[in-house]
Amino acid sequence: MNSLVLLAGCGLGDGSCIEETVLTYLALEKYNCPYQIVAVDMQSASINHIMENIEGNRNVLIESARIGRGRIQNLHSIHAEDFDCLIIPGGIGLLSNYGDNSDVRELVMYFSEHNKPIATMCAGIDFLRRLLRDDVLRKEYTTLTPDSYCCDRDRKLFYTPAFRMTRSLCDVQKGIECMIENLLSMLNEEKV
Amino acid sequence: MNSLVLLAGCGLGDGSCIEETVLTYLALEKYNCPYQIVAVDMQSASINHIMENIEGNRNVLIESARIGRGRIQNLHSIHAEDFDCLIIPGGIGLLSNYGDNSDVRELVMYFSEHNKPIATMCAGIDFLRRLLRDDVLRKEYTTLTPDSYCCDRDRKLFYTPAFRMTRSLCDVQKGIECMIENLLSMLNEEKV
Repeated sequence: MNSLVLLAGCGLGDGSCIEETVLTYLALEKYNCPYQIVAVDMQSASINHIMENIEGNRNVLIESARIGRGRIQNLHSIHAEDFDCLIIPGGIGLLSNYGDNSDVRELVMYFSEHNKPIATMCAGIDFLRRLLRDDVLRKEYTTLTPDSYCCDRDRKLFYTPAFRMTRSLCDVQKGIECMIENLLSMLNEEKV
Repeated sequence: MNSLVLLAGCGLGDGSCIEETVLTYLALEKYNCPYQIVAVDMQSASINHIMENIEGNRNVLIESARIGRGRIQNLHSIHAEDFDCLIIPGGIGLLSNYGDNSDVRELVMYFSEHNKPIATMCAGIDFLRRLLRDDVLRKEYTTLTPDSYCCDRDRKLFYTPAFRMTRSLCDVQKGIECMIENLLSMLNEEKV
């Protein structure tokens, strides 16, 4: 089992949400799933996280390395077929940096077309819908609480609302943990 | 009960360690302790976290805001007497940005002189020793594992090694959690 974690920068406003990213790593480690972290080598607008204005440009791959645990890779240098699932922490940078990126679209389409699980959280659902040109997971939403997740088992898409529904880190942790635990169970069942 | 969390930027190499910071917030929330996050409004060298070279300057307060949960404050705008304890996540930025900063030294000295608990982790111990001009916690070290902590109860200094001793997020989480749980117990005992 091997999972791929896609980052879009370091910080909610112009990259990946830091808290969701760290809690994703924690859950993957807890359930003994190795993971590779990737980001795209591209420039994008940097947002001042106090004033919320644009301040220059930064490199998405280099900024992602701050939460890349010393082992981030350029998306170009990995092979999607080496991974069993794709996990995408939330953050506005997903849309602003990757919304129209063809390499990222290709990555997501690879997992989708090969029926390999994709899990996301918070703003990641808007990102997935944009890339898949589809209103995915809409009907699974109805009873979601921040500490839970939903799943389209046919399409193998997983989602937990994370900070879209709460400010509690503990609730977000529960949502991410149970989502990843169930995603890994699905993969294990397939291998039996 | 109210705790103060001091950040030195966003990222292990030139600021605060992101993972340790998020796990600190998670532990404080778990044990129902409100916290205020602060950093100093100053410029410092930015480190490319892939190549490890210096690339320009950034503002420590603005970068810290990325892990500041939308509510970071300038150190100048808070009053140390409003807080019961000080928690300092690790990271090389503590030494490179704050090692000679008089406002930070004054903050740490306030907690030390008023016998209010100070907790730190990883490189934070080198930072504390430099500021307190003292070889603090040396004799408490001997049997430390990454999922544990040590404490000088007279001086109310707490330390867990975190990433200095492991690469496991789960172990670091255990160490931070038990350190913060025991720090808060000490404060609660004093109030009885």
